[in-house]
Amino acid sequence: MLASHDLPRLKTNVVPFVSVHNMMRLVNAIGVERMLAELTDAIATEFRRWPLFDKTPRVASHSLDGVIELMPTSDGATYGFKYVNGHPKNGRGGLQTVTAFGMLADVATGYPILLTEMTILTALRTAATSALAARHLAAASVDTMAIIGNGAQSEFQALAFRAVLGVERFRLYDIDPAASAKCATNLARHGIAATILHSVEAAVEGAGIITTVTADKQCATILTDNLVGPGVHINAVGGDCPGKTELHADILRRSDIIVEYPPQTRIEGEIQQLPPDYPVRELWRIVAGEEPGRRNAGDITLFDSVGFAIEDFAALRYVHARLRGGDYHEELDLLADPDEPRDLLGMLHRAEA
Amino acid sequence: MLASHDLPRLKTNVVPFVSVHNMMRLVNAIGVERMLAELTDAIATEFRRWPLFDKTPRVASHSLDGVIELMPTSDGATYGFKYVNGHPKNGRGGLQTVTAFGMLADVATGYPILLTEMTILTALRTAATSALAARHLAAASVDTMAIIGNGAQSEFQALAFRAVLGVERFRLYDIDPAASAKCATNLARHGIAATILHSVEAAVEGAGIITTVTADKQCATILTDNLVGPGVHINAVGGDCPGKTELHADILRRSDIIVEYPPQTRIEGEIQQLPPDYPVRELWRIVAGEEPGRRNAGDITLFDSVGFAIEDFAALRYVHARLRGGDYHEELDLLADPDEPRDLLGMLHRAEA
Repeated sequence: MLASHDLPRLKTNVVPFVSVHNMMRLVNAIGVERMLAELTDAIATEFRRWPLFDKTPRVASHSLDGVIELMPTSDGATYGFKYVNGHPKNGRGGLQTVTAFGMLADVATGYPILLTEMTILTALRTAATSALAARHLAAASVDTMAIIGNGAQSEFQALAFRAVLGVERFRLYDIDPAASAKCATNLARHGIAATILHSVEAAVEGAGIITTVTADKQCATILTDNLVGPGVHINAVGGDCPGKTELHADILRRSDIIVEYPPQTRIEGEIQQLPPDYPVRELWRIVAGEEPGRRNAGDITLFDSVGFAIEDFAALRYVHARLRGGDYHEELDLLADPDEPRDLLGMLHRAEA
Repeated sequence: MLASHDLPRLKTNVVPFVSVHNMMRLVNAIGVERMLAELTDAIATEFRRWPLFDKTPRVASHSLDGVIELMPTSDGATYGFKYVNGHPKNGRGGLQTVTAFGMLADVATGYPILLTEMTILTALRTAATSALAARHLAAASVDTMAIIGNGAQSEFQALAFRAVLGVERFRLYDIDPAASAKCATNLARHGIAATILHSVEAAVEGAGIITTVTADKQCATILTDNLVGPGVHINAVGGDCPGKTELHADILRRSDIIVEYPPQTRIEGEIQQLPPDYPVRELWRIVAGEEPGRRNAGDITLFDSVGFAIEDFAALRYVHARLRGGDYHEELDLLADPDEPRDLLGMLHRAEA
């Protein structure tokens, strides 16, 4: 019944499960940079068939300390969703700010076909989506990126921009110098000599791309208007929930703003600072060739990234396709499977005997 | 950081996981009937604090063959959600019509604290919710229940009504006699001598409670108006998605209609046949003592059951509380846990080494 999918399903009760351990093995086997490049293409492929998808803003449960979200979507044949939290204070207790897991299911039967960790996978797809946007929006000659905020996502951004756009020079700034040092050390392993700067002003100097990826849950002004010159591409990754923004509103008003899914971004993105009908453009239309990317050399382009379910769907499908023939998954006994489908109680009886 | 929860969390990367195998062990260790009675009380406990919960209609993805739903809720301290599908044709391919899994998370950190199968658990909580409603709505003297539709849910309904209300006599009808035979055989193991009847008319004769629990995804008229006399309690379990109903609209107009969460039931329940402002009562208000249950001996009461997230939340918390000290769960390596929270890439590097 599940012939449309890659993995054989000999047993209807088990679901392939990719643990953190196996995700790390898979990423390392492929190579982080290659996987970032392949995920960028995988996301582009799904964006080109955007109108096919069931789309809904994520279902968010907000609390004082953070947010828990469910992000579902479906292309009519496969359904996917991600569970993800965002808790900026978690780091102080030794926990991740963002953790995630996700699944795919067969639409025809509703049976799950994949359960996987997505903390690592989300870090990869977020960077890949940023690279996809920049491929269409950044100036062709760009070779330098400033990264404001040097937390867990920062290195993935750097690696994706090198893999996809060939950016080789990175200028790092974080309010915590230890974060910048950690980022630089990790990038050095990939042959990248990143420069640590001591102010936002210094970091953005000469950078054709400015990536903001800070984690505070508040309206901060990481980037002020005077720091952004013509022709720059801003990759705003950190402002991604209501009340959390990184850019001064004046920058937005000067920019060509590109978003993933307007109904969600107007609530969560930088553009929550603007009127609800402020014109923005949709990334998928640019990727699909319906609209141009960068229109003028002097434009400031702004990718107001918040993350959308179709990106996770692309990442889940990418992982699922790579499980075939490999040993990157376990079998999880997740689905009740009585011999006769109407005999659930009988299954309990037989288990007792 | 997770001290408010029952299970010690020595490792931040693992999530307690209850497989189908372990859920069956747990249910059999407690006993199905005792667990149904305890779940009924657990659901009542959560219903009494109903206003505290984050409530949203489930997020449904409909397709030609069925529906896939996410059902989240939170009480401010704990977050829970269930993944559940409904695919009436699945049985023909040897698959379950409904499969489900669910999780709980700590609101303060967003970290999952439980992942569990919920196919079996959903069958139990659905029957427990029906029993809870009937405890307040059925006539006190009732000792006979008709069950129209004898699929996987039917026996759980019978066992819950015996455990919670003391109903001892069951009258079974299904369009497929094999389903009724299966139901009767399973109930016999619990010392119940159910009677198989050959028409809806015969089955409902003398029954103070009529449970309808058929599975076709269409507007069927399982129960016509002339079959329902004064004083009867109708427990309508099967009509639970848009376009799927079981009762003739004339019955609804004669009944005192009780629902779980009106915004969801008006879309999915029997009352989708009525105008959107048709008066209904909420079960939680009755359970909380804000409103009477059955008001007059001659009333027809109708519990228009579609299933709501707070019932799953109650069931998840019930299971979570019973894992302490037992051996009913495994540890699932679901959450990335770098030594330094901001060093996700470094964790990948170390895994490679």
